[in-house]
Amino acid sequence: MPISGFPEWLPPQRMIEQYVLDKIRSTFELYGFAPLETRAVEPLETLLSKGETSKEVYLLHRLQDSSGASASSSSDDQLGLHFDLTVPFARFVTENHGKLVFPFRRYQIQKVWRGERPQEGRYREFLQADIDVVNRDTLPFHFDTEMPLVIGDVFRSLPIPRATILVNNRKVCEGFYRGLGLADTAQVLRTVDKLDKIGPEKVAALLAETAGATDAQAQACLRLAEISATDGSFVDAVRKLGVTDPLLDEGLAELLQVVEAANEHAPGLIRAELKIARGLDYYTGTVYETQLQGYERAGSICSGGRYETLASVGNTRFPGVGISIGVSRMLGLLFGQNAISVSRSVPTAVVVAVPAEEQRAECIRIASALRRRGIPAEVAPTAAKFGKQIQFADRRGIPYVWFPGSPDTVKDIRSGDQVEADPTTWTPPAADLRPTITGI
Amino acid sequence: MPISGFPEWLPPQRMIEQYVLDKIRSTFELYGFAPLETRAVEPLETLLSKGETSKEVYLLHRLQDSSGASASSSSDDQLGLHFDLTVPFARFVTENHGKLVFPFRRYQIQKVWRGERPQEGRYREFLQADIDVVNRDTLPFHFDTEMPLVIGDVFRSLPIPRATILVNNRKVCEGFYRGLGLADTAQVLRTVDKLDKIGPEKVAALLAETAGATDAQAQACLRLAEISATDGSFVDAVRKLGVTDPLLDEGLAELLQVVEAANEHAPGLIRAELKIARGLDYYTGTVYETQLQGYERAGSICSGGRYETLASVGNTRFPGVGISIGVSRMLGLLFGQNAISVSRSVPTAVVVAVPAEEQRAECIRIASALRRRGIPAEVAPTAAKFGKQIQFADRRGIPYVWFPGSPDTVKDIRSGDQVEADPTTWTPPAADLRPTITGI
Repeated sequence: MPISGFPEWLPPQRMIEQYVLDKIRSTFELYGFAPLETRAVEPLETLLSKGETSKEVYLLHRLQDSSGASASSSSDDQLGLHFDLTVPFARFVTENHGKLVFPFRRYQIQKVWRGERPQEGRYREFLQADIDVVNRDTLPFHFDTEMPLVIGDVFRSLPIPRATILVNNRKVCEGFYRGLGLADTAQVLRTVDKLDKIGPEKVAALLAETAGATDAQAQACLRLAEISATDGSFVDAVRKLGVTDPLLDEGLAELLQVVEAANEHAPGLIRAELKIARGLDYYTGTVYETQLQGYERAGSICSGGRYETLASVGNTRFPGVGISIGVSRMLGLLFGQNAISVSRSVPTAVVVAVPAEEQRAECIRIASALRRRGIPAEVAPTAAKFGKQIQFADRRGIPYVWFPGSPDTVKDIRSGDQVEADPTTWTPPAADLRPTITGI
Repeated sequence: MPISGFPEWLPPQRMIEQYVLDKIRSTFELYGFAPLETRAVEPLETLLSKGETSKEVYLLHRLQDSSGASASSSSDDQLGLHFDLTVPFARFVTENHGKLVFPFRRYQIQKVWRGERPQEGRYREFLQADIDVVNRDTLPFHFDTEMPLVIGDVFRSLPIPRATILVNNRKVCEGFYRGLGLADTAQVLRTVDKLDKIGPEKVAALLAETAGATDAQAQACLRLAEISATDGSFVDAVRKLGVTDPLLDEGLAELLQVVEAANEHAPGLIRAELKIARGLDYYTGTVYETQLQGYERAGSICSGGRYETLASVGNTRFPGVGISIGVSRMLGLLFGQNAISVSRSVPTAVVVAVPAEEQRAECIRIASALRRRGIPAEVAPTAAKFGKQIQFADRRGIPYVWFPGSPDTVKDIRSGDQVEADPTTWTPPAADLRPTITGI
């Protein structure tokens, strides 16, 4: 039976997912990110080091250790499945920093697991595609401007609705709150982050209650959160609120760089959205979220930001910036709307018909000749009547059936066109070679 | 810290693994296998349905459920990580048979987990690449002859030592034992399977002890196990032992078909090896193992066989035949001998040098122009002295450094050759575009 929160795609959907993953990966590689895959498990203490996620961890127990009624105490008890790819990456950097060349750019495309109660659009097992750049001691800010460009290229390569990257900078918010006279900036940030869920009035009340904000301070926080611009005009909008603080200045300058770089290299991709905070995640500067046009209500499908200390070894800090595509989440949304489809349910482009079982060896030779030239081919399962063999292809969306003979012929079963063909030279049109993925 | 049994590769090794996986996948797709990925977890009862593997299962517990000293009883307790890809595939077929078109060919490349004590060459988390063909009611035997051809093509596409597929048929062994008068053929099979570990004398003693074999019967079993041939001559060798049985005849005819098809379509690939039994696995006919030249002692790196009942739904049986490449096992062996290497540690082919930070936007435009034509490029992290920027490329094995100017130039840092170049037209030699993977 299906298990709630553990999605499984049928092969046509998996073909779409593979296509999407190939595009993601090839874009990441075009930007020079090296591949990394970490083990699925981490020690529990590593998983909890980020804080506040304890509820989401799946712990592992060996079956033979958990027999009987009492809890076991084997060392495996303290292994859990990773719930993101950032924590394992930070651990990997800590463990292997002597073998890596910095700045280190890596991508990582893996399943992650969260033991939370499943709900609409939330999975307990899902696929993420992350990129991060990490350096020793300091990481130049321009890497923060590169993340949206990579993600913009990824999304442009896919047959999906237009993506908009929403960007903000924690320094803008924290500097602004501090400049307003609110000391517990983290609490203000977490409260303002609830804006979309609970609305401005409740946020204002909570700010008064939990952060000691006056009504004027609460209103100023809400005014900041309203600011949204696709160009550098957000700087003036913030300045007009009349708050000054050095951290605010630094944040505005950084955010402006991200927006301007995107507008120069990928017009239409980015929007400064000053309410974006990424809640409990431990970002220290730039934060990213991504909206898919038509799926805005579903939340971000690609998020990330800057960590001043992604990892540390002794006194050495490793700052990083990264972003993560929620592949399962995005595909779940698109599949739910039938917004992406594939032209056939198998990779096969040609079925070689079998006139009689005695001719199977000849049919295999034909299929081999096609495969040697990169044409996916399979031999029909039985020497049934040709009508049945054509039906075999048709039910799978395979466009061509090959008939061995003197000479051989190949039939496009969609048009009915049948032509003489030689398996060492015939090639289908490029559009038929691989299954075609189409968005609506 | 590293966790025993959970291997992690550094990025250069992961690049090799990716390359190997791409080759495996593209060969599987050339044969028309459709991709499938199943969830990582199965209900415990599904995992145990194959029998005798209970010791190897990792069970999942949610962290918040396992607090305190007593064992928990949440429904998640009965989920475990899959230990192979056959059991999940059988479950998937049972669950989705109404949505699949049969015969159904699928490939599945995923991690699996086994909670066993780690030992030399054994992992607790490892990657397998499986293909299976499954049909409703009956599955023509010729699919058993196709598996070695697919695997032969996979291994020929990789820069690894020569692979030999060892093949046998359970019907040969069981028919032979039955014809000899030994009733508990499964017990005989399991005992003879220990031949390589404990030697012929102990096998003979065990056969007497556990299967009631006379000395003559035990010797006949050992004589059968000695038979090995790269052609159809094994049939005569078996016949000379003077045992007759209809199941033996059927098995010999099937095994001969597998050997003859391989010799016709992939000479040198296969060897009939009558001691191969695949121990506790529930195969009912053909069985496969694979030896890598120079790594014979390490055991099989690719195994499989025929199941008369891979899955069943009510009275409907779904027979199947499949084979599984132990990707982590194979790569672990090759990495251990430094027998496979990659030409650089990142995908990047070109580093665009930054003459001054003010010119970074121009450098990004150059890198974008290269990427648009499929050339992996990254922009140097800082506007350091050019010597430092060349060193940045050199330390990663990146072959080219691009210098913006009037005109731009590009330097092959291996030869020192520097030429004028335009980012919208310049292309590196094909051998430099992607990292090159080489075997020894």
